[in-house]
Amino acid sequence: MDRLADLDLAVRTGASCTSVVADLVGDPDGPTVLLRGDMDALPMPEDNDLPFASEVAGTMHACGHDAHTAMLVGAARLLAERRDALSGTVRFMFQPGEEGHAGARHMIDEGVTDGVSRAFAIHVTPNLPSGWVSTRGGPMLASTDEFSIVVRGRGGHASTPHFANDPIPVACEVVTALQTYVTRRVDAFRPGVLTVTRIRAGTTTNVIPETALLQGTIRAVDPQTRAGVVAAVQRVATNIAAAHDMQAEVTLTEGYPVTVNDAARAAGTLEVATALLGPDRVLELPSPVMGAEDFSYVLQEVPGAMAFLGMCPPGADPRTVAPNHSNRMLIDEDAMATGIALYAAVALDALVDAGADRPS
Amino acid sequence: MDRLADLDLAVRTGASCTSVVADLVGDPDGPTVLLRGDMDALPMPEDNDLPFASEVAGTMHACGHDAHTAMLVGAARLLAERRDALSGTVRFMFQPGEEGHAGARHMIDEGVTDGVSRAFAIHVTPNLPSGWVSTRGGPMLASTDEFSIVVRGRGGHASTPHFANDPIPVACEVVTALQTYVTRRVDAFRPGVLTVTRIRAGTTTNVIPETALLQGTIRAVDPQTRAGVVAAVQRVATNIAAAHDMQAEVTLTEGYPVTVNDAARAAGTLEVATALLGPDRVLELPSPVMGAEDFSYVLQEVPGAMAFLGMCPPGADPRTVAPNHSNRMLIDEDAMATGIALYAAVALDALVDAGADRPS
Amino acid sequence: MDRLADLDLAVRTGASCTSVVADLVGDPDGPTVLLRGDMDALPMPEDNDLPFASEVAGTMHACGHDAHTAMLVGAARLLAERRDALSGTVRFMFQPGEEGHAGARHMIDEGVTDGVSRAFAIHVTPNLPSGWVSTRGGPMLASTDEFSIVVRGRGGHASTPHFANDPIPVACEVVTALQTYVTRRVDAFRPGVLTVTRIRAGTTTNVIPETALLQGTIRAVDPQTRAGVVAAVQRVATNIAAAHDMQAEVTLTEGYPVTVNDAARAAGTLEVATALLGPDRVLELPSPVMGAEDFSYVLQEVPGAMAFLGMCPPGADPRTVAPNHSNRMLIDEDAMATGIALYAAVALDALVDAGADRPS
Amino acid sequence: MDRLADLDLAVRTGASCTSVVADLVGDPDGPTVLLRGDMDALPMPEDNDLPFASEVAGTMHACGHDAHTAMLVGAARLLAERRDALSGTVRFMFQPGEEGHAGARHMIDEGVTDGVSRAFAIHVTPNLPSGWVSTRGGPMLASTDEFSIVVRGRGGHASTPHFANDPIPVACEVVTALQTYVTRRVDAFRPGVLTVTRIRAGTTTNVIPETALLQGTIRAVDPQTRAGVVAAVQRVATNIAAAHDMQAEVTLTEGYPVTVNDAARAAGTLEVATALLGPDRVLELPSPVMGAEDFSYVLQEVPGAMAFLGMCPPGADPRTVAPNHSNRMLIDEDAMATGIALYAAVALDALVDAGADRPS
Repeated sequence: MDRLADLDLAVRTGASCTSVVADLVGDPDGPTVLLRGDMDALPMPEDNDLPFASEVAGTMHACGHDAHTAMLVGAARLLAERRDALSGTVRFMFQPGEEGHAGARHMIDEGVTDGVSRAFAIHVTPNLPSGWVSTRGGPMLASTDEFSIVVRGRGGHASTPHFANDPIPVACEVVTALQTYVTRRVDAFRPGVLTVTRIRAGTTTNVIPETALLQGTIRAVDPQTRAGVVAAVQRVATNIAAAHDMQAEVTLTEGYPVTVNDAARAAGTLEVATALLGPDRVLELPSPVMGAEDFSYVLQEVPGAMAFLGMCPPGADPRTVAPNHSNRMLIDEDAMATGIALYAAVALDALVDAGADRPS
Repeated sequence: MDRLADLDLAVRTGASCTSVVADLVGDPDGPTVLLRGDMDALPMPEDNDLPFASEVAGTMHACGHDAHTAMLVGAARLLAERRDALSGTVRFMFQPGEEGHAGARHMIDEGVTDGVSRAFAIHVTPNLPSGWVSTRGGPMLASTDEFSIVVRGRGGHASTPHFANDPIPVACEVVTALQTYVTRRVDAFRPGVLTVTRIRAGTTTNVIPETALLQGTIRAVDPQTRAGVVAAVQRVATNIAAAHDMQAEVTLTEGYPVTVNDAARAAGTLEVATALLGPDRVLELPSPVMGAEDFSYVLQEVPGAMAFLGMCPPGADPRTVAPNHSNRMLIDEDAMATGIALYAAVALDALVDAGADRPS
Repeated sequence: MDRLADLDLAVRTGASCTSVVADLVGDPDGPTVLLRGDMDALPMPEDNDLPFASEVAGTMHACGHDAHTAMLVGAARLLAERRDALSGTVRFMFQPGEEGHAGARHMIDEGVTDGVSRAFAIHVTPNLPSGWVSTRGGPMLASTDEFSIVVRGRGGHASTPHFANDPIPVACEVVTALQTYVTRRVDAFRPGVLTVTRIRAGTTTNVIPETALLQGTIRAVDPQTRAGVVAAVQRVATNIAAAHDMQAEVTLTEGYPVTVNDAARAAGTLEVATALLGPDRVLELPSPVMGAEDFSYVLQEVPGAMAFLGMCPPGADPRTVAPNHSNRMLIDEDAMATGIALYAAVALDALVDAGADRPS
Repeated sequence: MDRLADLDLAVRTGASCTSVVADLVGDPDGPTVLLRGDMDALPMPEDNDLPFASEVAGTMHACGHDAHTAMLVGAARLLAERRDALSGTVRFMFQPGEEGHAGARHMIDEGVTDGVSRAFAIHVTPNLPSGWVSTRGGPMLASTDEFSIVVRGRGGHASTPHFANDPIPVACEVVTALQTYVTRRVDAFRPGVLTVTRIRAGTTTNVIPETALLQGTIRAVDPQTRAGVVAAVQRVATNIAAAHDMQAEVTLTEGYPVTVNDAARAAGTLEVATALLGPDRVLELPSPVMGAEDFSYVLQEVPGAMAFLGMCPPGADPRTVAPNHSNRMLIDEDAMATGIALYAAVALDALVDAGADRPS
């Protein structure tokens, strides 16, 4: 907010979270386009001795959101200099809580997308050569859902299983049956990933435990696939348990929806990037990736796109460098200039694009 | 019947099957004891050139029932000679339809056990040294039940399983889940055997079939185990199918019950056999066997016992000789004299035993 | 060949199969482009009473290859009329044996692609509105491989499984383990489909069989995925069998490779189709389909593309109409004119495209 | 030892553990018979307020070994009074470390069974009516073996399993395959129990772990069954892992062998108990139980038997009362007199029995 103070922006902060929204008004009769940069760090220790390492123990910017924030401020400064050329308003959305707290959802509820015609976000990644840009129309990132299953049997002594009702083989059958669901009922070209990441039952070698716990995640880039897998977890767990005279308690926690880029805005972004960077540094993604983003909520409200910006540090190999969410994650700061330019150029292009929609 | 004609027996034949019942009346005020010999052959070709080989193509005495019949006639002749010494009546039960047709059940319905106080049967086996006798108190042979499961999915092309609902992996899960039932819910010392003997689905390599078929058998020597396994087949199949949004149609066919020897009559049989043969040729069975017998129905009505009589042919090894139900099955006919003597001696002993029950 | 006779084409027939290759030479110094139409019928009875129904019992054109042949003849006639305008040679490839006999492979071995610079094929489908055209760059159809697995245990009586070694639960475990391979080791965005289409073991309810048979198919649109699944079938089957002290005999039969369209030629085809038909009847396929084609062999030799041509009969719904390989399959013959025009227009475009490659 | 001090016994203590061996010598030329009482407590808190509750926090006599010790002292006192009537020597074996430390094995290594002709032990149980005695010839208690399996895959992100190699479904397949081993390869009448009591893998919902852990126990009453199950754990785990390109590290820990009563000594014990208590309080066990005992080591050296002595507290139901190893376990101390008498009477009987073996 300090770095925005001298720019004559309409700035307001959030009620439900530490969000900042700043409007740069060019032509007040023109459309509004939104640029988003998320701000939150991750609860993990930074593993390096660099002078700019995190000063807060156990917390670090392992997902590049500090770069997002800085680039978005940079874009605000760049665009503010050419306010007169703006055929509308550019809204800068500084968002907290992307890492599992749905900050974007809170900001939408407080009006950040009201009156907005187009939206754009950048996410940096060390796994792309520095200064490269990539995106795609349609699904770009996955939905996430988490599940927890408690298979409830009856405990007893390991030597007399018939007096107990052993939940361990039954939990194992649930794991197996879920694989079969995925291979048999999910369209191979509208894929879903279901991973049981945690299984836990029993404490010793002579006692049959009362319960077995399964936990995991569901990823999909298609709403129908997502709904199918979510329903399958419930159906498979409860019926497999019933097959063995047990109960399964299933808890499903809905995460972010699929991040779906507007086809035209993704194409526009690729064009703008190509104009800025030349064709060799612009990559149309051949398929989505199974990560997730709460910018998906913004894209449910407003046509727009998200793009990856490569920030592989000098000398490193993008295929093997420490990725986002590693505690040794680093970025090439020189690529931030590219990010600032991309934000600004996409904003200008989006204003034109949005303007074409409007009644003259 | 010809061989019984000269013995002054009260002979009657069955209405519902080709059974023969012959009563040898000693003391008309005494108790009645029953000796059973089954008579039916098996629908299989005999694989030998012996002069006494079956003359009916595709049918042979592969389970020794011809020996049972002959021995029972022999016992009738032997006992008829000492009718005056009989403290009651001996009933000779010549039974058809032991091999899956429950002939004993039909004869009971027609009254063969009415007024009977004790019952005894012999079954020959090549897998015991010739002339040996063995039995045990309590369960001696298993119950049988057969099941058939149709898992009903939805057919389609092998390349697009999501348009179909593939029953094959689901049928396979049913097979697996049934193993878990047996290991977890059946008391190790009251065992049951469940075997899926047949699985069948699909015809080609590019079509997902509509259904998958499972068939098999359940054996147990304990009614609680039997009931548990039978219920499990239904529960497991229908719920595993439901886990995958399918139906399972389960057909259960009840076979013979457990053959349970009366403890006192089994002990009496072992004593009688020891008196006849000496201790070295009498073996108390350490556990039941998982075969089945419809003499079980008789033993549900009347205290009694069944015994195995060894008939391993001379020179053969009882462990490797062709067993009952082999089309090369042979017996040592010399042991038939032992069988006749055993029938007669057990009958006399049983008359005494039954007489002791009666009010004086 | 009769219908080509008056066109002054260089026609030759195949040695290893009933193929016909006809060259229409325009500018003899120009490049050669290939148009392919397959000719073979399917061994299945035709289920209709139409006047043009198959006259050969048990054989019918259920995959539209008669339409392909007719359209290719039509294209030859159309182009022959404008031979002078041809900047090179158009080769008409009339191919037998597409349905599992790799006719294309035989024709390549006999030289059909020698000297060819571009290639194009059409496949009709009732499941697309009549007259529509669709294709995509990159993988369009899948590879196929077939597998057969014999799990070899040891037979015995169903009541004493410990004397046998039951292959049925082991075959079921193989089926289950293969699902796990697919969900865990195949990249969700480079998918593979593995379907066990046939399982067969046992004949009765009281005998454990010696072996269990599994058969099925593998589909993939990515060579790495294909190789991984093929290797997994071998590894999973033999090791699961070994886990149970059995052997698994695995037979893998390699089918057609992935049909991969050249990106530029697919784009060129979509452009040509759009010019012919307008944008509303041209569809870029969002993903491949898991069917297979031996035109894949041609595309391994020569850059080119294949396109689907919609032939849904009048009044029918493309989503529910009898599809290819149904014995009630019908096409809208009126769309054949579109196919002829598309063949010819793509040939002309391809000649131009190929000409641009050549040294001047 | 204080309570033995006035009895003129030859007492010695152990070198490798806190054992006490006391010999009461009658006829020095006669045989020696051994009576065993184990002494150790369990590391668990006692859950009652009784005046005689454990005074050592976290340690209690939950398996009745204090009663065993007291009864054995009582028997020593009783027999010492009639030393002149003893036709040989009675050895009192006070044994520590029965609960998993193989104290009997240590005492045998130090000579406790040297020169001993017969052996006898009592174990109390609240699950039998107070004052009842039961035993059987042959196997009475099971062998134990423990296993631990680490399935080693490769960790990664839950959204991209193809970059990892997920050990969780593979560990689940191992659990399932072990059930199949037990149902298919173990003789139903020589049973084994294999229970996976613990499964553990993963910590969060978005990470695939590197390894999965399985632990459990194997019980059997037959050496062949035991060896088969132990071998199966190794074979199944390593091959199932190999099926999925993983390793399984299997650790097997051999526990106590099967406790096998000598048939004649078990029959003698039942006779002695019947003479003492009448037939209504003596029960021949119909089958072994799947618990374990290190008295098994003594019975590998010396013919003998173990018997259960019922100690269900007054007013409680033996079927539902807190069992051995419960922290609310109680006994009916009045039954200790029965135990003392049984120890003494079996010793006298065993001396006679052993004397009959000796050359005169």
